[in-house]
Amino acid sequence: MTNDSELSFTCPIPHAAGANITMAHGGGGSVMNRLIEQIFRSAFDNEFLNQRHDAARLPLDAKYLAFTTDSYVVQPLIFPGGDIGSLAVHGTVNDLAMAGARPRYLSAGFILEEGLETDLLERIVASMGRAATAAGVKIVTGDTKVIDRRGNDGLFINTAGVGIIEHDLVIAPQSVQPGDALLVNGDLGRHGIAIMAVREGLEFETTIESDSASVAGAVLALLDAGIEIHCLRDLTRGGLVSTANEIAEAAGRTIHFTESAIPVRDDVRGACELLGFDPLYVANEGRFAAFINPAHAERALAILRQHAQDTEPACIGYVTDEAIPRVTLESAIGATRILDMLSGEQLPRIC
Amino acid sequence: MTNDSELSFTCPIPHAAGANITMAHGGGGSVMNRLIEQIFRSAFDNEFLNQRHDAARLPLDAKYLAFTTDSYVVQPLIFPGGDIGSLAVHGTVNDLAMAGARPRYLSAGFILEEGLETDLLERIVASMGRAATAAGVKIVTGDTKVIDRRGNDGLFINTAGVGIIEHDLVIAPQSVQPGDALLVNGDLGRHGIAIMAVREGLEFETTIESDSASVAGAVLALLDAGIEIHCLRDLTRGGLVSTANEIAEAAGRTIHFTESAIPVRDDVRGACELLGFDPLYVANEGRFAAFINPAHAERALAILRQHAQDTEPACIGYVTDEAIPRVTLESAIGATRILDMLSGEQLPRIC
Repeated sequence: MTNDSELSFTCPIPHAAGANITMAHGGGGSVMNRLIEQIFRSAFDNEFLNQRHDAARLPLDAKYLAFTTDSYVVQPLIFPGGDIGSLAVHGTVNDLAMAGARPRYLSAGFILEEGLETDLLERIVASMGRAATAAGVKIVTGDTKVIDRRGNDGLFINTAGVGIIEHDLVIAPQSVQPGDALLVNGDLGRHGIAIMAVREGLEFETTIESDSASVAGAVLALLDAGIEIHCLRDLTRGGLVSTANEIAEAAGRTIHFTESAIPVRDDVRGACELLGFDPLYVANEGRFAAFINPAHAERALAILRQHAQDTEPACIGYVTDEAIPRVTLESAIGATRILDMLSGEQLPRIC
Repeated sequence: MTNDSELSFTCPIPHAAGANITMAHGGGGSVMNRLIEQIFRSAFDNEFLNQRHDAARLPLDAKYLAFTTDSYVVQPLIFPGGDIGSLAVHGTVNDLAMAGARPRYLSAGFILEEGLETDLLERIVASMGRAATAAGVKIVTGDTKVIDRRGNDGLFINTAGVGIIEHDLVIAPQSVQPGDALLVNGDLGRHGIAIMAVREGLEFETTIESDSASVAGAVLALLDAGIEIHCLRDLTRGGLVSTANEIAEAAGRTIHFTESAIPVRDDVRGACELLGFDPLYVANEGRFAAFINPAHAERALAILRQHAQDTEPACIGYVTDEAIPRVTLESAIGATRILDMLSGEQLPRIC
């Protein structure tokens, strides 16, 4: 970790089993340094982090940089299919991918609640390290703070990400055009439902696992194949419909979905009915929408299928030639209705 | 803000006076988007933030990048001489400066506690915007989450920073050499004491204000003047002695201070005695140590003076030729003692 007080003693003594985080772990002294050495540095080991300076010095080989950040406050900290650590890597890597960037470097800022079990922290940090390796990024700089115990939050993580942009496309809502095909890289609603099922203590015949994953590989493959991408957006808080409304608004265009084409698993649909949610508004953490030249849709779908695990990418709609910023849905029985944005109280703390 | 759900409606309705943050402000819907438009975008307005994408696309003109992060959990949120917003800018800008980088772009991740007064948030965000402008950086990407109310924390802020490295010096502890002069850019201990005085309800004849400030201008001036800088480090958590111990450890060298040369204001010294602190271990947020070629010390001091406000830079010590990693102090009466690192419980949540 490269932070204010991170030049560290080497300390061969492992932390005692059953130990907990104390205020001293955020105080900038030897206790904090041991925590950094024992847990963070071993999980994130790389040549840049090992510079142990206030800021990492990183080589760059592009004219344009992508830069993004997200904080993660998900509860519970560990959920079917992931945890706050892997989520903090996937979410930020995916934001970089949505700019068509190759994710390269992550920062990691930890806010630890006094009393957090050190073993739990170690498990989450190790998961974060594995997710970073799998996504092809390095965690090169970090910071640790400790807050007084008050609830049972455990920890919050912020990751910021730097990627390099190697193409000349303007991947943005403003590039969306009438006729654009709208693709998704898999079935929707799994992350939000996985979280809510745990919170509500629901058990289904099979556990619904979060879709949390890096989509950077899929996006880079689309770019490498020369797919004319106009806009990309990950379908996180607020799900497909909120994202579509944001893009419709920014592009000044109507986005039209065909309900029967939108992939939602039966178990997710069933859980949504039970919990009173619409899966089209539920958060995903490994799903994105791609607005592309419709002539490339078949080829793009084939590429997305190569990067899909246990899921089926689909073309779920298109951009109409109406200059009205809205989202419409043609239902299974052929009726068309407008899908509005919700105000925002549907699913708190799912990321 | 460029985050998961930040493409926003324009909303001409200002938030009601006396309004508070609710869980919906973190839900990814229209309520969150209005918050972003009304408070964040107006305070941080710039061409990159206005791209409104998941990641900002930024032009780069250097081969090497500096990248750093810090989370801020200081209590109280507003203190004499600053607030958590300006601190979150200064701290991260200064970490970039410590790599000898020119700070360029910041991210801002907000974790808001349900119940936070919107007016207070607005005040802090506005302060952050002013601090960024003064430090010559742009806040180009951001994120907002809301956590359940449980304490009275109000908010936490993470900033990550990207800077460009325009020189070929290796500014790092490993570059420290025997004989190096050790300079500080002003008096020590003000930030930590300003915070503690408020927390403890102490009143002095004059209010002790935090030294929180960007030091990037001073560092860039040293570089521009060709000062041979070997290492830089800001004197935050743990203060001068903790920082010096970290560098002594990493460099494998003894750092020797002359107590009478270390600038500490009388009011800070008095408050430290009252509170039971040693000012050499108290955090600063606008002070740094520079290890430089001793032949350049006079010239460097003159440059630091040009960038000092209400304070006197000083040469406070040097690196000895002993290959023993430790910090020693020659007291006013001529006795020399070793200054150890503390364990870390001295001053919690001062940044």
